[in-house]
Amino acid sequence: MSLEALFEPRGIIVAGSVSSGKLGSVLIDRLLDGGYKNIFAVNPKGQGYGDIPGFVSAGEIDQPVDLVVVVSPSFTVAGVLEDCGKAGVSAAVIITSGFAEIGNKEGEAEIIAVAKKYGIRFIGPNCAGMANTDFHLYATLEEKPLPGGISVLSQSGAVGGAVMVASKERGIGISKFLSFGNGSDLEVLELLAYLRDDADTKAIVLYIENIKDGRAFMDVLKSATAKKPVIVIKSGRTSSGQRATLSHTGSLSGSDKVYSAALAQCGALRVRTLEEAYDLCQGFAVLPRLRGDKVVIVTNSGGPGVMAADQADDEGLVVQEASPALKEELTAFLSPYAGKGNPIDITVEGTGEQYYQSLVASLKDYDSALAFYIGTPYLKAMPIAESIVRAAKETGKPIIASLMVGPDMAEALCYLKENGIMFLPDGERAMKVFAKMVQYKNYLTDKKEAVRPVAVKTDLPEIILEPDAMALLKENGLPTPASRFVTDEKQLSLAAEEIGYPVVMKVVSPQIIHKSDAKGVYLNLRNDKELQDAFGAMTAAFADKDFRGVMVYPMLETGKEIMVGFYRDPQFGPVVLAGLGGIYTEILKDVSLAVAPVSKEKAREMLQTLKCYPLLTGVRGEAAVDIDGLAQLIADFSQLPFAYPDLQEADLNPVFVDANGVAIVDVRLIRK
Amino acid sequence: MSLEALFEPRGIIVAGSVSSGKLGSVLIDRLLDGGYKNIFAVNPKGQGYGDIPGFVSAGEIDQPVDLVVVVSPSFTVAGVLEDCGKAGVSAAVIITSGFAEIGNKEGEAEIIAVAKKYGIRFIGPNCAGMANTDFHLYATLEEKPLPGGISVLSQSGAVGGAVMVASKERGIGISKFLSFGNGSDLEVLELLAYLRDDADTKAIVLYIENIKDGRAFMDVLKSATAKKPVIVIKSGRTSSGQRATLSHTGSLSGSDKVYSAALAQCGALRVRTLEEAYDLCQGFAVLPRLRGDKVVIVTNSGGPGVMAADQADDEGLVVQEASPALKEELTAFLSPYAGKGNPIDITVEGTGEQYYQSLVASLKDYDSALAFYIGTPYLKAMPIAESIVRAAKETGKPIIASLMVGPDMAEALCYLKENGIMFLPDGERAMKVFAKMVQYKNYLTDKKEAVRPVAVKTDLPEIILEPDAMALLKENGLPTPASRFVTDEKQLSLAAEEIGYPVVMKVVSPQIIHKSDAKGVYLNLRNDKELQDAFGAMTAAFADKDFRGVMVYPMLETGKEIMVGFYRDPQFGPVVLAGLGGIYTEILKDVSLAVAPVSKEKAREMLQTLKCYPLLTGVRGEAAVDIDGLAQLIADFSQLPFAYPDLQEADLNPVFVDANGVAIVDVRLIRK
Repeated sequence: MSLEALFEPRGIIVAGSVSSGKLGSVLIDRLLDGGYKNIFAVNPKGQGYGDIPGFVSAGEIDQPVDLVVVVSPSFTVAGVLEDCGKAGVSAAVIITSGFAEIGNKEGEAEIIAVAKKYGIRFIGPNCAGMANTDFHLYATLEEKPLPGGISVLSQSGAVGGAVMVASKERGIGISKFLSFGNGSDLEVLELLAYLRDDADTKAIVLYIENIKDGRAFMDVLKSATAKKPVIVIKSGRTSSGQRATLSHTGSLSGSDKVYSAALAQCGALRVRTLEEAYDLCQGFAVLPRLRGDKVVIVTNSGGPGVMAADQADDEGLVVQEASPALKEELTAFLSPYAGKGNPIDITVEGTGEQYYQSLVASLKDYDSALAFYIGTPYLKAMPIAESIVRAAKETGKPIIASLMVGPDMAEALCYLKENGIMFLPDGERAMKVFAKMVQYKNYLTDKKEAVRPVAVKTDLPEIILEPDAMALLKENGLPTPASRFVTDEKQLSLAAEEIGYPVVMKVVSPQIIHKSDAKGVYLNLRNDKELQDAFGAMTAAFADKDFRGVMVYPMLETGKEIMVGFYRDPQFGPVVLAGLGGIYTEILKDVSLAVAPVSKEKAREMLQTLKCYPLLTGVRGEAAVDIDGLAQLIADFSQLPFAYPDLQEADLNPVFVDANGVAIVDVRLIRK
Repeated sequence: MSLEALFEPRGIIVAGSVSSGKLGSVLIDRLLDGGYKNIFAVNPKGQGYGDIPGFVSAGEIDQPVDLVVVVSPSFTVAGVLEDCGKAGVSAAVIITSGFAEIGNKEGEAEIIAVAKKYGIRFIGPNCAGMANTDFHLYATLEEKPLPGGISVLSQSGAVGGAVMVASKERGIGISKFLSFGNGSDLEVLELLAYLRDDADTKAIVLYIENIKDGRAFMDVLKSATAKKPVIVIKSGRTSSGQRATLSHTGSLSGSDKVYSAALAQCGALRVRTLEEAYDLCQGFAVLPRLRGDKVVIVTNSGGPGVMAADQADDEGLVVQEASPALKEELTAFLSPYAGKGNPIDITVEGTGEQYYQSLVASLKDYDSALAFYIGTPYLKAMPIAESIVRAAKETGKPIIASLMVGPDMAEALCYLKENGIMFLPDGERAMKVFAKMVQYKNYLTDKKEAVRPVAVKTDLPEIILEPDAMALLKENGLPTPASRFVTDEKQLSLAAEEIGYPVVMKVVSPQIIHKSDAKGVYLNLRNDKELQDAFGAMTAAFADKDFRGVMVYPMLETGKEIMVGFYRDPQFGPVVLAGLGGIYTEILKDVSLAVAPVSKEKAREMLQTLKCYPLLTGVRGEAAVDIDGLAQLIADFSQLPFAYPDLQEADLNPVFVDANGVAIVDVRLIRK
């Protein structure tokens, strides 16, 4: 459905009091100030405002009107929509609050119903409005933004408003501003899709507190990041934070780790603060595309250069030492006491020309540069600014300037800005920008393996005992060990013969979940005698339980113990987890997760992000384990929740992996 | 030695050209502008500047002059000092560069010698000068600071200059500014001690790149933090950073982890950026003392409140849920839809009065508050600012305000400032301030156990074999297991009988370092036969080595394997390390370190900061290990480098610890 009526209305009704100081009049001032003309006031008195004519009903207006902006009290909103709907208005911005957010669900249901009846699409209620600077449309009480290429989509009205103020302070130009408040009609999915397709939007800043349908969100987000960068601020990260979100929105916020994983999987760039978001917007707006993660720091002062290098390291950028060839080149024009590694420290005696030459020489080897300079109140900054501009033009590579102190700093900053050079007051922020831009570049260029769809199966027993679980895994191509399910002594001996001693025997009973703790597992049974003794002991011990029999397995050499599992997140559905077993997951929380299903490539990436990953590639001369096999297992396993919609969660714990392969040693499948 | 001549000179010579635009004239302008009167120009032409008289030599001046500020070329500096020294000048600020920092060590040695000859104390060369605002003295080319209670001590001239500019922008008042450049006379130790004792200095900001004598630095720093907060920016943190520091200063930067540990042990507050340093200065200057780590967030917008809660969590503050009693109290005056947990979300409808009441009510339970408010361009911020001021006065507790958006924001911020309320634009920065202030408070109130001094022993053999090493540990009260050193079969049998089977046998040879790898260790020998067989195998295997005999130990049950060690850091001397053995230290780098010696209490703290600490307190129903015994071991062990100055480094790896106690299973002591 086209949202033209909302974004490019032929006429606008302002519904609400236009008496002096009332919101209706403030709003009309904003609209007029923005340059929009076809405005009509509708209110019970039919009062106009300045040149804007007033009407009691929308039906009285004899010109085409597409949009109504509502600031009248909450109890009047349904009536306003009814009136406007009858008059052919097809879009609304409902700024008025006092609906679901304060428990007035009936009121919200009523406006939804009226809007539906007349085919009115709306944003709000309880929102900060919207703006489309390309159409000179400012249907918001918030600060009027500067025009530009960034579009802002905010779930929170307050944050949306703060964003507008901050964007102005930072000189960030806005294309669309959309605060959807309670989002009872238009909300993040549809508006994000609109911005994705909007040619004037070059980058998107998205503020979200919670998402209802994580999968649908991911689909739209992926399609958006394929076209333009999407920068996301998601609140509610830590445990305290999540508690607060719960009390604030009454909807589940979902585990924050899942949000992070989902955002990363979609190529969105998650940032913590507005400042970071704007820095990044500026980066995407101003800087040439980054080709890689190697950054050089050119400075005239060692300490701050070092601190910037620290920060680059922290952000995962590569601050590699200058090559011998580059050092030689630098030696030709820098003082013998200049630092020629990286940072390149041209020292306090360094000239503008040396700055220029150092940048040009080093940017042959590096992908981006931080040009750092601390002057004095009597040394001019302009020669440095000019050098940076020249170097940026000549190399075509991204340079962020960080100049400090100088009698002509204002002039220098202005010059940098005019010449499209990004300026940030500290190196840390510059490194964050480079790092996120590299992340986006990598996302776009990384091969994205398609995940094959699976057929849905529904033949799950009510309680899935180990024999069924192992059979299910095997049927789905997962690496299960040989096994036999047996119910008596005779079968047992035969099974052990077939599998080969030594064997493992495990109890099968719907009443025994923690088999080891209940002494329902016997390891390393070396012959028939030991086997039968163990079976006797087990049948005796579980005489009063629903004892169904035992599983017999070969005794495997233990490799590394891996834990793989999935669960269904309320927002995002199936999420797959992997980590080393035991204390690594329990104490060090060293797990990777991703929204399922995952490709083998993505599974490999999950393993690589584990802190204990070096244990898998081999330490102290150990051979690397079969990482390829393990990645394949995770990828295949991540399909199970789709193949079996009735499976609620599943654990493979442990999976043994060594140099020769992978084997699932224990499994637990839980039905919904 | 008094530094009165430097800080409160009766007269000042400016040495250097005072022609228009030259540094001498700039400097005189700065001094005059600051309000200092008794200035004399000395230069080869005897040229004056405005009302300031000029002389060819200091000897010509007929008034008392204590200080010379030098901006003349580097080759003239020794001559200037000579001339001034003869005239009785006893202090110098040498701004001129071109000495050791560019390889001119002779030049630097020369000025040191001349200064020494005349008893001149100086800062510089290659520095940004100094200021003493309490004396209206601005002997610097940098921005003139505002007067106030913060003193800044900077190793880097450039950073020092930037600090001055930033402090002015932030409205931070400065007492002393000291840039010591190459530090060839006065440097960090003496100047820090001066600031410690300076009554006008309320807090110190210290920028360092490297420290020569870490122990002496720690002593001064400890004495300073006992009196006032010391905020430290230390550059050169990560590996790239450290490489850059090396190339910049030519002196060893030391392991950054050791710096962090040493700074924390001295109660100094390490920050990453100037911004953090200034935020913290403002906190100490403006806020009442924090009593604890519980912080409440009062907000009118859920999302940003949640983000602030996240950040508080990250900083180690406690964002605990409101108590039932507090919730009840809040319910009395807040809307039913307000969030009454923590954050307390008074919602967009919240009034100034509700803000005030919420702050007062919650600060009965919490130690500090962030008052967060996002307005709109048409809603006034002043009522909120007034509420915050009232609440701060009434409760006497620290509140940081974070107000955004409002037509009267400038007025509101001004009002907050006038009323001594700290303002920060985002919650993250506020939480960092609270966290560091809590850290300082904890440092001051934590009991500091004295570490007993040890007697020095020098009777170390050239190569310390295991029998000697174990004897040494035992002699120093460390928990070694029973052991016997034997050289033949007969002694061996007897030793094993005494110790009791099963036993462990380990080879003793100066040529065999990695005993296990060389098959020089036999575990779990259960009787004399097994013992003698093993001994036979060992003597055969090591026939061509310098085989001295074997150590016999009881076979211990393995508990958790701990690694404890010390090494000598070039800057800080003995540093003690502790961590879980094996991959925890190798791959996860999960070690704690501290400058030795450490008290038992400090050793316990080291263990508590390990990520794997929960393994020691018991997981999955395991009993806690003997943490007390382990802490005692670390404390006792941390004395060894002082008892034995000839010991270079030592490893106890592993130490076994379980619920019943600790035992050192292997030891390696290495002589210098």
